[in-house]
Amino acid sequence: MPADLDPLLFGEIDPPQRLLMGPGPINAHPRVLRAMSADLLGQFDPEMTGFMNQVMALYRPIFGTQNRWTMLIDGTARAAIEAALVSLAAPGETVLVVNFGRFGLLLTEILGRVGAKVETVEAPWGEVVPMDAIAAAIERVKPKVVATIHGDTSTTMAQPLEGFGALCREAGALSYVDATATLSGMEIAADRWGVDIVTGGLQKCLGGPSGSAPITISDRAAEHIARRRHVEEGIRRDDIADGQGPRIGSNYFDLAMIMDYWSEKRLNHHTEATSMLYAARECARIALGEGLEARFDRHARAGRAMTAGLRAMGLTVFGDDAHRMTNVTGVYIPDGVDGEAVRTMMREQFEIEIGTAFGPLAGKIWRLGAMGYNAMKHKVLLTLGALEVCLRMEGHPVPLGDAVPAAMEAWGD
Amino acid sequence: MPADLDPLLFGEIDPPQRLLMGPGPINAHPRVLRAMSADLLGQFDPEMTGFMNQVMALYRPIFGTQNRWTMLIDGTARAAIEAALVSLAAPGETVLVVNFGRFGLLLTEILGRVGAKVETVEAPWGEVVPMDAIAAAIERVKPKVVATIHGDTSTTMAQPLEGFGALCREAGALSYVDATATLSGMEIAADRWGVDIVTGGLQKCLGGPSGSAPITISDRAAEHIARRRHVEEGIRRDDIADGQGPRIGSNYFDLAMIMDYWSEKRLNHHTEATSMLYAARECARIALGEGLEARFDRHARAGRAMTAGLRAMGLTVFGDDAHRMTNVTGVYIPDGVDGEAVRTMMREQFEIEIGTAFGPLAGKIWRLGAMGYNAMKHKVLLTLGALEVCLRMEGHPVPLGDAVPAAMEAWGD
Repeated sequence: MPADLDPLLFGEIDPPQRLLMGPGPINAHPRVLRAMSADLLGQFDPEMTGFMNQVMALYRPIFGTQNRWTMLIDGTARAAIEAALVSLAAPGETVLVVNFGRFGLLLTEILGRVGAKVETVEAPWGEVVPMDAIAAAIERVKPKVVATIHGDTSTTMAQPLEGFGALCREAGALSYVDATATLSGMEIAADRWGVDIVTGGLQKCLGGPSGSAPITISDRAAEHIARRRHVEEGIRRDDIADGQGPRIGSNYFDLAMIMDYWSEKRLNHHTEATSMLYAARECARIALGEGLEARFDRHARAGRAMTAGLRAMGLTVFGDDAHRMTNVTGVYIPDGVDGEAVRTMMREQFEIEIGTAFGPLAGKIWRLGAMGYNAMKHKVLLTLGALEVCLRMEGHPVPLGDAVPAAMEAWGD
Repeated sequence: MPADLDPLLFGEIDPPQRLLMGPGPINAHPRVLRAMSADLLGQFDPEMTGFMNQVMALYRPIFGTQNRWTMLIDGTARAAIEAALVSLAAPGETVLVVNFGRFGLLLTEILGRVGAKVETVEAPWGEVVPMDAIAAAIERVKPKVVATIHGDTSTTMAQPLEGFGALCREAGALSYVDATATLSGMEIAADRWGVDIVTGGLQKCLGGPSGSAPITISDRAAEHIARRRHVEEGIRRDDIADGQGPRIGSNYFDLAMIMDYWSEKRLNHHTEATSMLYAARECARIALGEGLEARFDRHARAGRAMTAGLRAMGLTVFGDDAHRMTNVTGVYIPDGVDGEAVRTMMREQFEIEIGTAFGPLAGKIWRLGAMGYNAMKHKVLLTLGALEVCLRMEGHPVPLGDAVPAAMEAWGD
């Protein structure tokens, strides 16, 4: 074993202070980091269940909903996606996926493992799917569930969702939206959209660490899922009856049991991840304290400033302007520039991280995020100034000094 | 909405300082709580992947293994159980579960959802399953996988596992052990036991918060799982080939992709829960810094002291003395005593939590834990002293003052 992997030689945790301006994770708000230092509680301690109830109340406005079932899944954002899909869709059922990027592909992947019959309606990476194409696909495949990503960071596009839920309901389908990358950064209107389940994560616009995933579930979806309830033999109770529908294919992601855990029944399921719950609670307190409208505006300004700065450098921004996410911007790597060399220089010389890309965009674009605690004017300006320098040092002749004033102007005050 | 659920009125996180002497979760070590305050990093930042490699090195001795694949699952202990079982067992395959409590039932439950054909070999709650009964069951059902709990907190029993892995290997079966409740509190000897996968959690003897679950995987099991590898379409790469075996039924719990994420391939999967990784790293540093033998001895003393104190009060300890877990002790609630009233008084008057019970033991026993940061003499003594008082106030005539000296003597110095 090399000496640096001798466990007794590992020192106190001491990460460098990097500015994370990629597509997430981003730096957590210091209040969130401090909240995780609070002492733990037993999982059925009245103080603990009180905090759980507070979290439910805190996330309702963030999801734009009155849904009773608004809570946390104990895992990363991907865990909540799987919990939603495995609980909504049964094996053999047809599910329509609105696919316009890597995370749309993730939905198809998870649903394939669930055993659903997966159909897709697609757009090229960098575009979104028109609502009439979704309507036509619903008409064609007659799905039981329709699933989509809101903001797909792989392409930086945000799918418009006004009317989406109504379209699904009219066709008798349940609907699912992944809002991991946009929750508290762009408006999420679960109730107005009429969507049945929306999930998120803390590590993007909410400014927390990955590891806890907010979810909201409509009463309609909750009833559907309750019909699939199957309580573990070791903890069965007279007051919780099993449903008649097909058992959900995962125990950990069984939303029926998770709802019973978060209800006044307090059915024992997992042991709630207490420190992450404290983090999620603080993320939401910060977001609501700022005000959601102000927060959306801050993200919009950051996105406008980043885009304006990149364009002032002479770079080409990726994708459709009309549907760009406010909190992450794709930009083409100029011809002849080694994208990874620039990213390394950004990190090593400036302690700033910018993002690479996936699939058809790998090696073609960088992704620059400005979200949550990092959607701030000075962080956008510092990033743009550093990128100019790195591009020139990598031999690409950008004009020095144009990006920052353009970004300041686009920010607006 | 009642005023106390107006989110804007929720204050800074400020839980009461409860002493958690139940079956877990327990109070985290303050160093672990502080470690979570460290700044976040990008998931492929070299500093972050360096911390991931350190975590792999730190957990090998804790699991008693040289296994390369020793890492974390991003979820509670139950998440790692499901990851192990869904990745080991394919639908239709026979799995033998060694079942002696609520968590054995959980294994059957998860495996049922995986679609495995579940067989069991059982012991009554309060006993363990003799190794020859396991051998006979393996001979009878010819399983592909044999799964057991090490310490089942529902019954406070620890299943002996010397020779368990060899028995499984001779029969051509893979083996799984859940060590959530014992990891770093009692010896876990993955390699000597010859077990293929062992999983744990932080919230018991490791003295951390729930939400990250250590796992170790033998090379044999890793090869088996790699044959089931199926990389998501959005992130496929030429250097990672899919296997020919049946696709694993979960994306989030697909150990093939999770191993590729923790390998130098750094395949993108979930976004590692960074703060929880910092917590897991600190838990392990503390455990190895203390020394595992010293730590096992501390838990054994705490268990002996608790048991001696309870017996000195005239109470009857639950279950088989020969196989009792060192870190959690069951004790019968005396006739005529309202068990929940005592627990409430313990919490409200002394800020001490003791545990209730499940299934056939619900209302019959309390479970008193002394684990991790709480496996300390003074915490055992404080708990016993408070319990004496609460029993008397609930009308049960225990001798006052006998428990503490008996516990001190049993502690041994």
